[in-house]
Amino acid sequence: MQAAPQENTHSRQSLPERYLDVRARSREIVEPLSVEDCQVQSMPDVSPAKWHLAHTTWFFETFLLLPHASGYAPCNEQYAYLFNSYYNGIGAMHPRPQRGLLSRPSLDEVLAYREHVDQAMQNWLPHCTDAAALDLVELGLQHEQQHQELILTDIKHVLSCNPQRPAYTSFPEESEPPPQQSWLMIPEGLAEIGHDGNGFAFDNEGPRHRYWQTGAEISNRLVSNAEYLAFIRDGGYRSPLLWTSDGWARVNEQGWQAPLYWQPEGNMSFSLQGERELDAAAPVIHLSWYEAEAYARWAQARLPTEQEWEIAAARPDLTQAFGIAWQWTASAYGPYPGFRAAAGAVGEYNGKFMCNQYVLRGSSSATAPGHSRISYRNFFYPDARWQITGLRLARDLATTTGSED
Amino acid sequence: MQAAPQENTHSRQSLPERYLDVRARSREIVEPLSVEDCQVQSMPDVSPAKWHLAHTTWFFETFLLLPHASGYAPCNEQYAYLFNSYYNGIGAMHPRPQRGLLSRPSLDEVLAYREHVDQAMQNWLPHCTDAAALDLVELGLQHEQQHQELILTDIKHVLSCNPQRPAYTSFPEESEPPPQQSWLMIPEGLAEIGHDGNGFAFDNEGPRHRYWQTGAEISNRLVSNAEYLAFIRDGGYRSPLLWTSDGWARVNEQGWQAPLYWQPEGNMSFSLQGERELDAAAPVIHLSWYEAEAYARWAQARLPTEQEWEIAAARPDLTQAFGIAWQWTASAYGPYPGFRAAAGAVGEYNGKFMCNQYVLRGSSSATAPGHSRISYRNFFYPDARWQITGLRLARDLATTTGSED
Amino acid sequence: MQAAPQENTHSRQSLPERYLDVRARSREIVEPLSVEDCQVQSMPDVSPAKWHLAHTTWFFETFLLLPHASGYAPCNEQYAYLFNSYYNGIGAMHPRPQRGLLSRPSLDEVLAYREHVDQAMQNWLPHCTDAAALDLVELGLQHEQQHQELILTDIKHVLSCNPQRPAYTSFPEESEPPPQQSWLMIPEGLAEIGHDGNGFAFDNEGPRHRYWQTGAEISNRLVSNAEYLAFIRDGGYRSPLLWTSDGWARVNEQGWQAPLYWQPEGNMSFSLQGERELDAAAPVIHLSWYEAEAYARWAQARLPTEQEWEIAAARPDLTQAFGIAWQWTASAYGPYPGFRAAAGAVGEYNGKFMCNQYVLRGSSSATAPGHSRISYRNFFYPDARWQITGLRLARDLATTTGSED
Amino acid sequence: MQAAPQENTHSRQSLPERYLDVRARSREIVEPLSVEDCQVQSMPDVSPAKWHLAHTTWFFETFLLLPHASGYAPCNEQYAYLFNSYYNGIGAMHPRPQRGLLSRPSLDEVLAYREHVDQAMQNWLPHCTDAAALDLVELGLQHEQQHQELILTDIKHVLSCNPQRPAYTSFPEESEPPPQQSWLMIPEGLAEIGHDGNGFAFDNEGPRHRYWQTGAEISNRLVSNAEYLAFIRDGGYRSPLLWTSDGWARVNEQGWQAPLYWQPEGNMSFSLQGERELDAAAPVIHLSWYEAEAYARWAQARLPTEQEWEIAAARPDLTQAFGIAWQWTASAYGPYPGFRAAAGAVGEYNGKFMCNQYVLRGSSSATAPGHSRISYRNFFYPDARWQITGLRLARDLATTTGSED
Repeated sequence: MQAAPQENTHSRQSLPERYLDVRARSREIVEPLSVEDCQVQSMPDVSPAKWHLAHTTWFFETFLLLPHASGYAPCNEQYAYLFNSYYNGIGAMHPRPQRGLLSRPSLDEVLAYREHVDQAMQNWLPHCTDAAALDLVELGLQHEQQHQELILTDIKHVLSCNPQRPAYTSFPEESEPPPQQSWLMIPEGLAEIGHDGNGFAFDNEGPRHRYWQTGAEISNRLVSNAEYLAFIRDGGYRSPLLWTSDGWARVNEQGWQAPLYWQPEGNMSFSLQGERELDAAAPVIHLSWYEAEAYARWAQARLPTEQEWEIAAARPDLTQAFGIAWQWTASAYGPYPGFRAAAGAVGEYNGKFMCNQYVLRGSSSATAPGHSRISYRNFFYPDARWQITGLRLARDLATTTGSED
Repeated sequence: MQAAPQENTHSRQSLPERYLDVRARSREIVEPLSVEDCQVQSMPDVSPAKWHLAHTTWFFETFLLLPHASGYAPCNEQYAYLFNSYYNGIGAMHPRPQRGLLSRPSLDEVLAYREHVDQAMQNWLPHCTDAAALDLVELGLQHEQQHQELILTDIKHVLSCNPQRPAYTSFPEESEPPPQQSWLMIPEGLAEIGHDGNGFAFDNEGPRHRYWQTGAEISNRLVSNAEYLAFIRDGGYRSPLLWTSDGWARVNEQGWQAPLYWQPEGNMSFSLQGERELDAAAPVIHLSWYEAEAYARWAQARLPTEQEWEIAAARPDLTQAFGIAWQWTASAYGPYPGFRAAAGAVGEYNGKFMCNQYVLRGSSSATAPGHSRISYRNFFYPDARWQITGLRLARDLATTTGSED
Repeated sequence: MQAAPQENTHSRQSLPERYLDVRARSREIVEPLSVEDCQVQSMPDVSPAKWHLAHTTWFFETFLLLPHASGYAPCNEQYAYLFNSYYNGIGAMHPRPQRGLLSRPSLDEVLAYREHVDQAMQNWLPHCTDAAALDLVELGLQHEQQHQELILTDIKHVLSCNPQRPAYTSFPEESEPPPQQSWLMIPEGLAEIGHDGNGFAFDNEGPRHRYWQTGAEISNRLVSNAEYLAFIRDGGYRSPLLWTSDGWARVNEQGWQAPLYWQPEGNMSFSLQGERELDAAAPVIHLSWYEAEAYARWAQARLPTEQEWEIAAARPDLTQAFGIAWQWTASAYGPYPGFRAAAGAVGEYNGKFMCNQYVLRGSSSATAPGHSRISYRNFFYPDARWQITGLRLARDLATTTGSED
Repeated sequence: MQAAPQENTHSRQSLPERYLDVRARSREIVEPLSVEDCQVQSMPDVSPAKWHLAHTTWFFETFLLLPHASGYAPCNEQYAYLFNSYYNGIGAMHPRPQRGLLSRPSLDEVLAYREHVDQAMQNWLPHCTDAAALDLVELGLQHEQQHQELILTDIKHVLSCNPQRPAYTSFPEESEPPPQQSWLMIPEGLAEIGHDGNGFAFDNEGPRHRYWQTGAEISNRLVSNAEYLAFIRDGGYRSPLLWTSDGWARVNEQGWQAPLYWQPEGNMSFSLQGERELDAAAPVIHLSWYEAEAYARWAQARLPTEQEWEIAAARPDLTQAFGIAWQWTASAYGPYPGFRAAAGAVGEYNGKFMCNQYVLRGSSSATAPGHSRISYRNFFYPDARWQITGLRLARDLATTTGSED
């Protein structure tokens, strides 16, 4: 379950081989889905699987084939508009909440679009020697892997809206018995934070910089369903003093009483295998930042900062770091000191989202193989619950003088 | 184009034959649509074609097979919930705005559901002698014909949301040259209004009753695109004194500047054949009641009452009455004197909608063959524009002393 | 309590005397209110008392003094914008939902504005011989009386929003013991409906016209609190089959469980005297049309049409017709046959509201003395509850063969 | 204009004297306001001046008199509910958006409430020796000073909603000629951040802690109206690439084209003196964080972090730091390392707002005398514009190699 995050498969593959592998995996992920499943957008945050398949293809067409592959003819002139996600620098785009209205192009036409682009990439890529372009190819593959995770979390939401609670079958969620809980010491002192330059990283992971860490402790493992259920049963969702002001407002507006996909009784939840009994020992998932933060307060602890997480993750005793659930941190998503967005068209990739969101660290059971990194900074709005998101506790050193609770 | 409304095909067919014919026509209507087209719900008022196919089937299963066909086993227990539209007397129902989220059952499964029910109907119907049940079969067929029209108007809306403006090909909209405009006299006096009891009618068309008609005039034909364009160019959409208070509020909220589906310039509009040049002589369609009413005021006329329409439609000189566009009337939709909703489960069919809507008379180019009647009362909210709705002018007798304008 | 509606005081007064009387009454109505009470707008439908005092003054300034009183100088140029309600023909206006934001002009300045205009009217009116202008003065007084009722219903809503539930003291609500319930026969036949031309009437009350009445019965009295409480206790607010579709949607959206201002238990309600015990025998008030209509269905009856009400009200055996509660009718508010809005600036007074509203007949305990008429057509949206609105039952003749229930 | 922030008047006064001074200033601030002005709530973020006067009084009653002053009788039992702002630990509270609906208690009653509490405080405070209680008195006074600023910014918003654009007269906004722009160096290295424990500070200003600062530069002065106007004229509000994603969405939703209170032409703006010509040299105010951040990007700079601001503010060459405009920083509002919310009832004062907001540093022309501090952390949501908010630029050291622009 827990990927060794640094062994990136791609380091041992040629880029054209890796291109084919990553692209093929997207097709495999949608294999169990019907044409209709691939069409539906169940809320504005969710995109149809068909749209994900097309948008990731558009990325290669727009940023690589059109500028670099001489003689490339686009598959369809309208796709530039339909499958642009948010790149204002490229041009206008179809409104996000209306992606599910596009019955045309059909799934078959989108798959043909993928073929068209893949063919052109296979013709062009082996001959490309432009280092910046090759970096963009890698970015495109990393981007496609991000959307592979979104296809899974989005279809989970789509299927959960169906009273028949259908299963997406081919992606089992297994879990190992969790380790005994313990606190790992994070000593005070100067640390280096951010990507070290070896291998791929997104622009938001750098520049690497110094950071003064105050002494703290972090839990060796994630919070479990059983622990979260104790919070619920102790009235966690009815106790305003446990919540931030915004969190409490959201709890009441939305009527939250449990994590997303839980039955109110707390014994069943919806998963990609359909409705399943909750595994008490497994890490709790589908929490908003608000819930994670309130739970931590109830547990007389707090969320770790992203720096604490990164410092701890470099050590072997931090378990459940990768491949289970993204872990909310106390850190608002912002630029590292000296951050500059990438030049050119992909400069909108990360930087413009650096407000109002929180950083999540680690990776989840839906993250693509080889896509995890210690310096990876995922980010979502604090009310987002449809990603596979859990938490790990931290606490200040001064608070550890008493007994463990 | 203009159907002779009284020649109902069904009067010459056996009911089992008619059942097969009507049911087959629904299948034919969706023939040009892709699986994805049949899935999309483009706004809460619109239902996916797949849902229409299932709901009309649910009607026969729920109101006929389950109570009457001994030994009938429902296709799927969940369909009772998923495909109930608004019958609170039957039980809970899936929320209307979420119909488009149901990727399952698939279109294939819905077509199999139709087969399942059609087979059971064919086994049961020829042996049925219960007159009330046979009446309900006829109601089910009329109901299916109403949904046939909705499939066409709904898919038009769905396709119009696609920037590619795709065509639904197999349903040509032709138009004949309109007749010269003239005013038909409606004399003062006692009239009989409502269905006369010969042949099928919905409950809201009766009881037939006396009505005192004040003398008036009604136009022999519908208002044309060219005439409506003159209203637009005269600043109709910018002149508050032409509008009801609610209409003016809606114009400003929605930014209306032309009928639905028109290009702002007024020379092109979206149709089931895709984007097409406007035919100046053809009747204007896709108007809300607010727009029809404002146009009439601008033209120094008014909308006819539904009684005026019905009185005039009994005469041969009223043209464009059927098969072109539903015609907004000045009449709020309410019960006729002595109206009683049908007893039993289908009592919710019409009566509970008798507020806040306006009556439309005639029928449209999308209305099923044989489905038009002089006493037919269609009804929609005054801001609805996605149906094929136009208008015919009327005026008080006292106003006719001057020249025609 | 029950005003003799036809004895209009004004017929025995000179118009200048009547002007002073009506104007003085507005001042008396706000006497018990504090400066703050007169400022608050508790919802968009409600206007601050200060605004009512200014707007009714604006009416005389705009439609009479400025066009007719030579040398009249407006009190303040900005008042034309601030105190125009909805007359697009006059010019732009301050948005209705923001009336409560206008802390300036102060109440004192508004009272000075009234003085300014009253002085000018007293100078001009005795010398005026223009019949149309004199008619407009009478319209202005009728208009002011309408706003006198609104000041009372609006301040009731304002005070009800205050958890301290303060009383508006000087306007006692008394009630007489209601008469025994009985059904009054309304025979089939031709009737004359609408104002007969004697004395003042609003334009919407005419023209008088013939109407064919189907035989029916109407209750001699209003529905009481005790009767309505039986509907609630029988699950009226939880039974979808009793409601129109729109009514049921509104019940659920708003969580309605009782008339406006009732405590949920149904024993106390808020009144202009503060929180008071419900009088079981008194007519139920503060109902929406939806609730009135659902109650009637529950009672195996229906709402009367406005014509039935008018026919019955001409007879002496209809009790509780005036001075208690406006009575919802089954009639959507629309123009009578041959209706023409008044020419000129006040043409927007009534006509542009003739859609989406329902007619109420009679008058209420808050209606100004002398302001009631048999032909009076009040109108509100079907979800409005803050007016003093109740109901009277009617039923078709055919249904009377059984026992009375 | 620029207050010397550390000379707190209160350090030279006895606490009872200081109590009277601070309380008296609130009364002076509302002196120019009418009863109506004090009643209006122009948006949910704004509170009526009357409410501010009552709420600050409630603070002393609730947290000091009731627990500490034996025999104290509350002025009115209902005030505990009406004037609690957000202390869930104290009990339920009147909904914030409905504060403007409370016409009762009147302004006079609220002033009497102030008298009642002030009298009781004067009786109790001189005899109080409980250090924690005395700290709470000081917190109450600081709290009242915060509301004094809010009274001014809120009434500015209220008056701006009036088309007459009335002036609040007694609070002149003067401005000195700004200094020449220059960049101040902030060297790399370890810094101490947070309040040093001398004198009063809010809990969110501590604990003081070490922080590793990357080398940077900060502007010696605020951005001026003239500079901001250049941004507007360069198409700043129409250039998506200058904005964060959320900022761009808000610009389009709200139609922002200039700072709040500016006329679209950019030559006039609304102030507490009414509509006034813009002073080109004065600092730009009434910006959201989104606008400040976009401006900084346009100027090839960025917002300073709150730590950069605090480091720079300790030096004499940072001008316009206090008394002009709160300065948006790049820092999301969160807890300092080791932060603990205050124990007991006032623990909700600051901590529960530590999400989704941004830190502002300095103070504004509306800040109470003696209320400014280098470590002060003000915070608002990134779309808030009604406070007196501007910006100061910063930039990374690496970017300074070129010419100044």
